[in-house]
Amino acid sequence: MQLFYLPDLQNDTATLDAVESKHLVRVLRKKQGDLLDATDGRGQHLTCELIDANPKKAVLQVLERKEVSGRKASLTLAIAPTKNMDRLEWLVEKATEIGMERIVPLLCDHSERKVIKEERLERIALSAMKQSLRMHLPEILPLTPFSDWVQQVEGPKFICHLNEENPGPAFQRALVSGQSATVLIGPEGDFSPAELALAEQNGFTQVTLGNARLRTETAGLAAVHIFALNNSTPHA
Amino acid sequence: MQLFYLPDLQNDTATLDAVESKHLVRVLRKKQGDLLDATDGRGQHLTCELIDANPKKAVLQVLERKEVSGRKASLTLAIAPTKNMDRLEWLVEKATEIGMERIVPLLCDHSERKVIKEERLERIALSAMKQSLRMHLPEILPLTPFSDWVQQVEGPKFICHLNEENPGPAFQRALVSGQSATVLIGPEGDFSPAELALAEQNGFTQVTLGNARLRTETAGLAAVHIFALNNSTPHA
Repeated sequence: MQLFYLPDLQNDTATLDAVESKHLVRVLRKKQGDLLDATDGRGQHLTCELIDANPKKAVLQVLERKEVSGRKASLTLAIAPTKNMDRLEWLVEKATEIGMERIVPLLCDHSERKVIKEERLERIALSAMKQSLRMHLPEILPLTPFSDWVQQVEGPKFICHLNEENPGPAFQRALVSGQSATVLIGPEGDFSPAELALAEQNGFTQVTLGNARLRTETAGLAAVHIFALNNSTPHA
Repeated sequence: MQLFYLPDLQNDTATLDAVESKHLVRVLRKKQGDLLDATDGRGQHLTCELIDANPKKAVLQVLERKEVSGRKASLTLAIAPTKNMDRLEWLVEKATEIGMERIVPLLCDHSERKVIKEERLERIALSAMKQSLRMHLPEILPLTPFSDWVQQVEGPKFICHLNEENPGPAFQRALVSGQSATVLIGPEGDFSPAELALAEQNGFTQVTLGNARLRTETAGLAAVHIFALNNSTPHA
């Protein structure tokens, strides 16, 4: 199965751009009347018919919409971008495969990276969504200063950082299944004392991801995976 | 804390190679009598004294050995190397951080990659072990034909592959805490019917890592993380 991304449907039809149209008509050799799978990236699985096999601007018409079930709760991951951009990029890819609602790149006191290319991260997330046949495209927020962001978070909120003396409860035990949450992961140089104090004032609960010292991006993915496991449909 | 790797101790002393000696004496400016942390990669935390600060062949003496607790059970991950070597390399790095005993690269019927550089994977695992302050270096086996390997695995053994009709129980529910296990992850083109039959004949239990379609290396890491969570020391 190949999945197309149709974020902007108008009257149940969508025109693909030149790159996707050429891929569809020339590479996949799809013809007028063929059926295709698509998503709006917001949880809908769309069954579409190719109504104009134009290799420059192919037109699809939605025949059926199906809301994808199973996402009762969603995770927001707030994390300082790693110095090495590749590491952030793989986090976005893997977290999209496993399932995440939103990533907030944070500008922290100890951040070494102060610029990110959102468009590149968005392309990586889109490609991972299609590859893993997910119907939810994670939202990638612009780089946001820590103190602005930490004061406006609502709902259950957790913070993971190096704290050997008082690591707090395990993240999987602190989560309530079916409830959305936000998790904040420390940067490579950890949070500053002022940032930790501000998070505490704003109701963040300290949790641990285990007893290993994980790299920032590994910790981010571990948190996403723990949340997904905690909210997965039980199998027999 | 900086961790040194001393795999071959003789009479409780070890001579570092030229690269590590130079790093220790010239970069870290360690002097005779300084104490250092090291591991044998097999679960021992060694406290050492630098007894000869020779920048070409520094000599360490072990003062104290401490067995690192907490590893009651260990996981063997058997997986076909990905076509793109980078993806296998990051799996080795991340799985070492999270904790894994052994990785068995498998040559499967649908394997696109038929050669791997074990030394490079070993260097990546070593670097990840030091970075995450782990005292266990995962063992990296040579590329092994699927049918040779699958017939000789002992203990609880599981197989994850694409099977939408009958995915089996969730991996985390099939595992018994405190018990070592082996998990087999399908290659990019999935196992062949003959391989699936052979695994079944040899007592592998089909399990699922969740309802998302994960890339091979993401599935490998998800399995390692699930095993680690299942065997982690509970926190308050």
